[in-house]
Amino acid sequence: MLERIDHIAIAVEDLEAALALYQGVFGVQGVRREVNEADGFEVAAFQIGETAIELLVSRRPDSVVATALAKRGPGLHHVAFQVADVAEAAQCCCDQGLKRIDAEPRPGTGGSRIVFLHPKSTGGTLIELVEPGTGQNQPGKQKREE
Amino acid sequence: MLERIDHIAIAVEDLEAALALYQGVFGVQGVRREVNEADGFEVAAFQIGETAIELLVSRRPDSVVATALAKRGPGLHHVAFQVADVAEAAQCCCDQGLKRIDAEPRPGTGGSRIVFLHPKSTGGTLIELVEPGTGQNQPGKQKREE
Repeated sequence: MLERIDHIAIAVEDLEAALALYQGVFGVQGVRREVNEADGFEVAAFQIGETAIELLVSRRPDSVVATALAKRGPGLHHVAFQVADVAEAAQCCCDQGLKRIDAEPRPGTGGSRIVFLHPKSTGGTLIELVEPGTGQNQPGKQKREE
Repeated sequence: MLERIDHIAIAVEDLEAALALYQGVFGVQGVRREVNEADGFEVAAFQIGETAIELLVSRRPDSVVATALAKRGPGLHHVAFQVADVAEAAQCCCDQGLKRIDAEPRPGTGGSRIVFLHPKSTGGTLIELVEPGTGQNQPGKQKREE
């Protein structure tokens, strides 16, 4: 079912400091930035091999990123696995007792469709299932590349 | 500097339950198990694309895995990036202000050499730098494959 690790998300308190680490020290390039207005956070993403790292910073006190920072502090937030068909994969997970956060697949970045699984049903890890869109991992028009 | 995500480690409380999830629900195959006697934990690892997932379970109350579970609960524990030369990469990180947990590179699995960077210097993420050995990501003689 799991074809590839699409991305790993890291919750950060200071996005510029995090970028100074990844760009300045580790030398990553091709950082794409995008504000998710609906969910109240900003993402800076870059590829390392076949997987993206997404740095998430809250832009609103009630965002999921703010909640995660308050509960667990900064650090690894979730892992996203690529699947061929997100609706089918999520249904299969539910049939075997996992709990989904999203009742239906919803749009992710780059035309992808995503479903989050609840960490209480996965042994503590927040897992995202991602069915890629045609623009997956491609900087879109609305994004700014540095 | 970062060539690939070598592995993502997840601290679990119940290894058999975690394997039931990944093998039984997600259908992963080729699970390798290994006990790290020196550090007091057991690992079950499998590949998803070019990256391994390592499930870590404590086998001793004073292990780093037990400490992580007590502090943060189960879930994502650390991310390991492949580098060409771990001594050089770790020195470069130190020169730019990061703190290393391992003063010198030490042996990892499969003949690899590793250095951990302190999460207090990376914005909250425990980061491992891995220089692969010849047996990296290959089931070794001492491991049991299921």
